[in-house]
Amino acid sequence: MNFDNSPLITAARKERPERIPVWFMRQAGRSLPEYLEIRGSGSILDSISIPERAAEITLQPTRRYDIDAAILFSDIITPLWAIDFGIDIKPGVGPVTENPFRTEEDLKRFRPLDPSTDLDFQEETIKILAKELKIPLIGFCGAPFTLATYLIEGKPSKNHAITKQLMFSEPELWHKLCDKLADIVITTLTAQVEAGASAIQLFDSWAGILHPAHYREYVFPHSQKILQSLEHLNVPRFHFGTNTAELFDQFAAAGAEVVGVDWRTPISVARQRTNNSVALQGNLDPTFCSSEWPVVEKEVKRILKDNNNEPGYIFNLGHGVMPTANPEIIKKIADLVHELSPGSNPDKHPA
Amino acid sequence: MNFDNSPLITAARKERPERIPVWFMRQAGRSLPEYLEIRGSGSILDSISIPERAAEITLQPTRRYDIDAAILFSDIITPLWAIDFGIDIKPGVGPVTENPFRTEEDLKRFRPLDPSTDLDFQEETIKILAKELKIPLIGFCGAPFTLATYLIEGKPSKNHAITKQLMFSEPELWHKLCDKLADIVITTLTAQVEAGASAIQLFDSWAGILHPAHYREYVFPHSQKILQSLEHLNVPRFHFGTNTAELFDQFAAAGAEVVGVDWRTPISVARQRTNNSVALQGNLDPTFCSSEWPVVEKEVKRILKDNNNEPGYIFNLGHGVMPTANPEIIKKIADLVHELSPGSNPDKHPA
Repeated sequence: MNFDNSPLITAARKERPERIPVWFMRQAGRSLPEYLEIRGSGSILDSISIPERAAEITLQPTRRYDIDAAILFSDIITPLWAIDFGIDIKPGVGPVTENPFRTEEDLKRFRPLDPSTDLDFQEETIKILAKELKIPLIGFCGAPFTLATYLIEGKPSKNHAITKQLMFSEPELWHKLCDKLADIVITTLTAQVEAGASAIQLFDSWAGILHPAHYREYVFPHSQKILQSLEHLNVPRFHFGTNTAELFDQFAAAGAEVVGVDWRTPISVARQRTNNSVALQGNLDPTFCSSEWPVVEKEVKRILKDNNNEPGYIFNLGHGVMPTANPEIIKKIADLVHELSPGSNPDKHPA
Repeated sequence: MNFDNSPLITAARKERPERIPVWFMRQAGRSLPEYLEIRGSGSILDSISIPERAAEITLQPTRRYDIDAAILFSDIITPLWAIDFGIDIKPGVGPVTENPFRTEEDLKRFRPLDPSTDLDFQEETIKILAKELKIPLIGFCGAPFTLATYLIEGKPSKNHAITKQLMFSEPELWHKLCDKLADIVITTLTAQVEAGASAIQLFDSWAGILHPAHYREYVFPHSQKILQSLEHLNVPRFHFGTNTAELFDQFAAAGAEVVGVDWRTPISVARQRTNNSVALQGNLDPTFCSSEWPVVEKEVKRILKDNNNEPGYIFNLGHGVMPTANPEIIKKIADLVHELSPGSNPDKHPA
């Protein structure tokens, strides 16, 4: 199917969609009982690499919610796992690398990613989804900085001190590492689009721990290389991380059409910081998804009002759906955003 | 001693100090071997409540480093522990509240704080320090929002979902709780200044997890009440939290003379966001304190250049000294900032 005129893709072009598009980061996953049922007790990577199961998990939220996009059930580190770097996802912990990346020698542990063999499950999953879905599918991957933190720290870290030390003290090694990661990400995202994804989101989850001057020097060139390499695919490129209040302009300059905004920065402020040059996505605080409806309703209206009826806007959370989220609330959020969309009936808009 | 003309207090008034003042959040503590020696294996609250030991720990960094302020060895939750609310500091975890605050009923667990009996150790510690110190002593306490998170969550939390739910769903109870906390903070900080502290810092460590509209409604009035209640004491009021890029203006409006900036926002940007109405403090990424000197030197110079020779500036880290920090590097940072200060020799400034 061609989704060029769908609300998601239209808003990503900063044109007026027929209704404000809505989807939820991590809309598939632990908040849904049907997910817990199908997921089993193995590693999440097991479920990601079984195409029928990954497709089913991707579809689950689209049956419950009237949403404007599906997002591939995968993980930001999937391609690194696929080339056997030694990274895994430990339940209750997150990505762990038993032998972390620390020296020039570790560069040899990378081998080129061959999507036809290493990511065959991804292609298969997307092909199943392309047949089923009536809404655009978003593919995604982690950005080099965030992937590097997991390889270097070896486990989730609060202050990412080892990563920063390598980055500042051994800039050549740092750039070689990010260059290898960028190539892997380009291959992964390109394969996703070629298999049928209608948009991609580059997650730089941890970029917000950096000063903008450091981001500019050590991270921007690699994210820019990725986003520019994908330009010819002609799908909207989303870019997101939390705590990126000082990085929005660089996220846009790197080549993203849609910049994700966490719940800390008003959409109107993010629009100023990007000179209204890109579409914006966000930014409901995910903790609202387990609140009572009147509180949630007020907050959704506040965000829509803050967006001030700008067409280049995609409603989402400011971070992923939490396991404690109430699916009934998520459903009502999507419906409310649609109900309050301008377009068919502009009088309904709360502004 | 009167420190009105000291570099710290002068810079806090936005006047030109004889040299750029420097101190380091958590300059006393686990990065110093002499601290580990004296601290023993008990709770940190034991060391805080033994005046001779707390004074000695406060003095330790002033012997190693040429710094422009000492900061009382204490904790942001000390007064809550002192009124026996049931909060403690668990080694390796942080503040824990065995029976968390959740309902109206829990308000009864507060009793008024009597500094002469509940915080007698604090007064005694400061009196020892007032005799010894040749530099200003900064007193401090946690702000109501951050204190509330520890009481409500029961333990350190990543997303503070329970706190936010109580705040949004039961605003009356939330404001009653914060009002009680604000009174405790006012009493604590007033007692610190009366005993001899020359400045105070209000730590709202977690405020940066809030959207500015929510901060305005649920947090600002309480922090403002505290800062305004301290105005008559005529000491500079510092206010700091991490991730507060969107809150600087409100931190200033609440009544702070000095706003702390974490390492994410350039000092020059923070100055714009506060309309150059307050002095600024920060903002070296703490991970640099375990890097090699050439890397650190370059970064310190970058920050000083970013400050562009503005007088209302206090050099500090963007967060506390990490246990892995190298004291030799910290010493060199303080010396470099002083060496590059304008004043006696403006030619030395790197700008």
